[in-house]
Amino acid sequence: MLVRIHVTLKPGVLDPQGRAVHHSLEGLGFDGVEDVRVGRLIELDLADGTSDETIDQMCRKLLANMVIENYRIEKLDRKAEAA
Amino acid sequence: MLVRIHVTLKPGVLDPQGRAVHHSLEGLGFDGVEDVRVGRLIELDLADGTSDETIDQMCRKLLANMVIENYRIEKLDRKAEAA
Repeated sequence: MLVRIHVTLKPGVLDPQGRAVHHSLEGLGFDGVEDVRVGRLIELDLADGTSDETIDQMCRKLLANMVIENYRIEKLDRKAEAA
Repeated sequence: MLVRIHVTLKPGVLDPQGRAVHHSLEGLGFDGVEDVRVGRLIELDLADGTSDETIDQMCRKLLANMVIENYRIEKLDRKAEAA
């Protein structure tokens, strides 16, 4: 089973990477950029039948830093878009 | 408008970060992890009416490395989940 984990910084947590991207976009001449936040996207290929509880534990123990980050679990169908 | 860019490594491109996560998950005792790929998730808050063409240019010029990465653009409704 394919699972995609979206890890994002909690609101209010400073995002230096996002600021750098924001600044670069403006430097390239793109107008109207109001905010940029950068997070991680982790795609897991897990054995079928892995429980939601297990996936949650993976996020809490390793994939996300619960002090400053939120995570969201998205389950994909096999053969969902590979882009 | 809120736009989310999913940047993922192209298939076949070595992903050392994904391998490190894979290895760590196994070290923590999680079984059945077959593959892990790590990508970036970039959330942009753009002026309303920013064209698809402009967003595409942002991706090609800065946000994704077109040699080794793919990107996917997802437009969100205002007030879509903030998690």
